[in-house]
Amino acid sequence: MVRVGVDLGGTNIAVGLVNERYEMIACTSVPTGAKRPAALIVADLCSAVDSVLQKAGIRAEDCEMIGVGAPGTCDIQRGIVIRSYSLSWANIPLSEMMGERFSVPIRLDNDANCAALAEVKAGAAVGYENVVLVTLGTGIGTGIVIRGNIYTGLKGNGTEMGHVMLDMDGELCTCGRRGCWDAYASATSLIVQAKRAAASRPESALNRVENMTGQSVFEAADQGDVAAKFVIAQYCEYLAIGISNIVNALAPEMILVGGGISRQGDRILDPVRKYVRERCFDTREDALPIIQVASMGNDAGIIGAAAL
Amino acid sequence: MVRVGVDLGGTNIAVGLVNERYEMIACTSVPTGAKRPAALIVADLCSAVDSVLQKAGIRAEDCEMIGVGAPGTCDIQRGIVIRSYSLSWANIPLSEMMGERFSVPIRLDNDANCAALAEVKAGAAVGYENVVLVTLGTGIGTGIVIRGNIYTGLKGNGTEMGHVMLDMDGELCTCGRRGCWDAYASATSLIVQAKRAAASRPESALNRVENMTGQSVFEAADQGDVAAKFVIAQYCEYLAIGISNIVNALAPEMILVGGGISRQGDRILDPVRKYVRERCFDTREDALPIIQVASMGNDAGIIGAAAL
Repeated sequence: MVRVGVDLGGTNIAVGLVNERYEMIACTSVPTGAKRPAALIVADLCSAVDSVLQKAGIRAEDCEMIGVGAPGTCDIQRGIVIRSYSLSWANIPLSEMMGERFSVPIRLDNDANCAALAEVKAGAAVGYENVVLVTLGTGIGTGIVIRGNIYTGLKGNGTEMGHVMLDMDGELCTCGRRGCWDAYASATSLIVQAKRAAASRPESALNRVENMTGQSVFEAADQGDVAAKFVIAQYCEYLAIGISNIVNALAPEMILVGGGISRQGDRILDPVRKYVRERCFDTREDALPIIQVASMGNDAGIIGAAAL
Repeated sequence: MVRVGVDLGGTNIAVGLVNERYEMIACTSVPTGAKRPAALIVADLCSAVDSVLQKAGIRAEDCEMIGVGAPGTCDIQRGIVIRSYSLSWANIPLSEMMGERFSVPIRLDNDANCAALAEVKAGAAVGYENVVLVTLGTGIGTGIVIRGNIYTGLKGNGTEMGHVMLDMDGELCTCGRRGCWDAYASATSLIVQAKRAAASRPESALNRVENMTGQSVFEAADQGDVAAKFVIAQYCEYLAIGISNIVNALAPEMILVGGGISRQGDRILDPVRKYVRERCFDTREDALPIIQVASMGNDAGIIGAAAL
């Protein structure tokens, strides 16, 4: 039996049809047009679902379900997007709205949770029970899987490990508080740190980067730039401190790191593993989780939504 | 059917017999004598179980099980106390040793986990699914219940939320690291803070306290001592920061606070609630957990062990 997964993002709506083994049979992507009224966005989402089904020659009623991963806080019981900054949505009854077009069950969850579920169902975490996925992007997203199921916490509100405070009176975070992990180890924060280092080191190649991205900091380091190397070493320590906090707080079997920066692989994860091995509360070998790169890439949102 | 719960502490071994409603039918307590060989301690533990059964006129084989909460890291699958600092134990096969005396199932878990389970089964958290118990003592102990069951994490090693870092390069912690929540909000840390405040304020009544305890700081504040009031306000903020981290990381429905200092009740919890309400990542009313005092007191260990 096939399932439909929808990755509702602030920029694009990606829709995929998957089989029992979570292999993608057909997919499509349309712009979200996030500034439009929710009704229009949902209409486009439904049309994208129709188009994927049509591509595969499958009727909607022959699908087991349609799952949607949304960027924000979701009431998963009632299928409502409670609040989404990137869509500017508040209390949008998404499942009900989609139910007017489709008669199969509609399920909803937060996109970071879907991505974590995708790793457990079909990615790097197959066979693991307790897994945390950390996505390093504009902010830090976290999805927690416990005993094989998404852990959503209070009323399905999801978890925000990126906003665990790791420095009192520390860096200002986008959430308005100070010292959140997000303000040290998101991709955005890496860029802030690189710009600061550039400003204090006029000789650094970082000063010649036009549009600074996480990638460009790593490239400058590759070319031997001392400031860039320093920034990356410091960034890896910030990443490691937050990951150590997850290890101490939850002792998951596996911690996966995703998002653009995770493409650096062992270059960032080796220092993280070393820090965790040496500085976690319980450093015995069998108390340490596996730490590796998430494997599902861009399809994680679709696959995870289809696995809801 | 009755169950036996054993709270194996560094000072005393408390044993209780409970009924289906987790009401205590009979109990006893014997000194642990923690410096003796493990075999002698376990022998005394078994004798204490026998004596409780005898008191109640019940045969061991008529018990459903015997549960033990131990102060340290436990391999709950194999019934082994992997490491306990307060007992100086390493790899003690407790379930097997007890199995030589009793033919009923023997179950083992960490004492902080047992205390959390007790609150969910018979205490302040009855009816709640996702609960964190924070015990403020010599250190900070944490027990997590998820979907009604103890969450033990990797290989049953338990969780150590007290060692989530909340200040980089902060206070030195007993674990050897810096900036752990434990080093700010344990009872021990409150005493350290009070002694420091006393040293810098010669006029403070804290200087006239002979054996400083958590209790004595609150008493000095009651008598109007400015330094003590300041210390308590600061301590409550440290407590609140760590509790906010738990809210952001796990979004539990309820956070219970136990241990000696929790007897101060709303005096410490009201400032914590205010901080969490104003400064958590998601401050909407229905995203905030209930924060209250644990209700099981000294019996938590026995009841929780019996509920394993």
